[in-house]
Amino acid sequence: MKFCAHCGSPVERLVPAGDNRLRHVCPACGCIHYQNPRLVVGTLPVWGDQVLLCRRAIEPRHGYWTLPAGFMENGESAADGALRETMEEACARVRLIAPYTLVSVPHIDQIHLLFRAELADLEFAPGTESLEVRLFAEQEIPWKELAFSSVSLTLQTFFEERRHGQFGVHHFSLDALPRS
Amino acid sequence: MKFCAHCGSPVERLVPAGDNRLRHVCPACGCIHYQNPRLVVGTLPVWGDQVLLCRRAIEPRHGYWTLPAGFMENGESAADGALRETMEEACARVRLIAPYTLVSVPHIDQIHLLFRAELADLEFAPGTESLEVRLFAEQEIPWKELAFSSVSLTLQTFFEERRHGQFGVHHFSLDALPRS
Repeated sequence: MKFCAHCGSPVERLVPAGDNRLRHVCPACGCIHYQNPRLVVGTLPVWGDQVLLCRRAIEPRHGYWTLPAGFMENGESAADGALRETMEEACARVRLIAPYTLVSVPHIDQIHLLFRAELADLEFAPGTESLEVRLFAEQEIPWKELAFSSVSLTLQTFFEERRHGQFGVHHFSLDALPRS
Repeated sequence: MKFCAHCGSPVERLVPAGDNRLRHVCPACGCIHYQNPRLVVGTLPVWGDQVLLCRRAIEPRHGYWTLPAGFMENGESAADGALRETMEEACARVRLIAPYTLVSVPHIDQIHLLFRAELADLEFAPGTESLEVRLFAEQEIPWKELAFSSVSLTLQTFFEERRHGQFGVHHFSLDALPRS
């Protein structure tokens, strides 16, 4: 950020009075431009003993497999965003069960929120951002071709918990973990 | 947003190619300025059968009671943000137990994430944004003087679940509920 979005003047980086962090502040109009992490919302769609993955048609991680997810938009709830992304990326309708994993990724200012979900039917297909969409049983998961650590973590946790038949909710921070 | 934060030119509102939403786009440098919901993180600090609330020293809802929470910052995890806010608002150290409520507030582009937590000790005090910090048993909760619907919902859910001794994780969207 170089210019004030409100008045167009060049911004400065300083710690505002009463604050303890560097912010972009406009010396002309006084506007403080806070920057905060962005939320990525999506689902872990389940059908029997299989889960639905999408192969990415876009960067980053073109060609790698992921769960249907994307940036939450203004004006929607996290659940609505997760349903929308599942429809956009996999043309799939799901029923949300519960929030499942919340993965903080501080080095890129993101937080990924994935809901456990049940596929409503087998009417899925690649959306414009996917090359391919298919169901995988646990032993078929392409662990080395997963796009993001948050996806690996969510799938590992899911299959582990499924063995015990009980699902919790989990917060991870990726800075404390090796990258996949 | 009226000006491009990257080059200072006036922005336009249009739907970029391949998108389906109005965005602020700079006709001079091509930059698309996405705007996304902000995440508020905090805790529900528990001490025996009591919970810790803070009375707000700032607007909005000056003088009303709330759980310690605030905007998640870039470069931190959701858990770190919740611990930081608990320290800033209540000067309290807690141990996080698990994510508990996730409350979408689409009409103000926010999502509130509260963790269940255990107070480490009784060394709490008002931070600069609080007038007063104290413990409340369930029958003492000032239900009509709570600052936000997300706080009311979280406390209601907590006391209800505590009767059964089992805690889940819950997603609410405030547009579907009456405001408190």
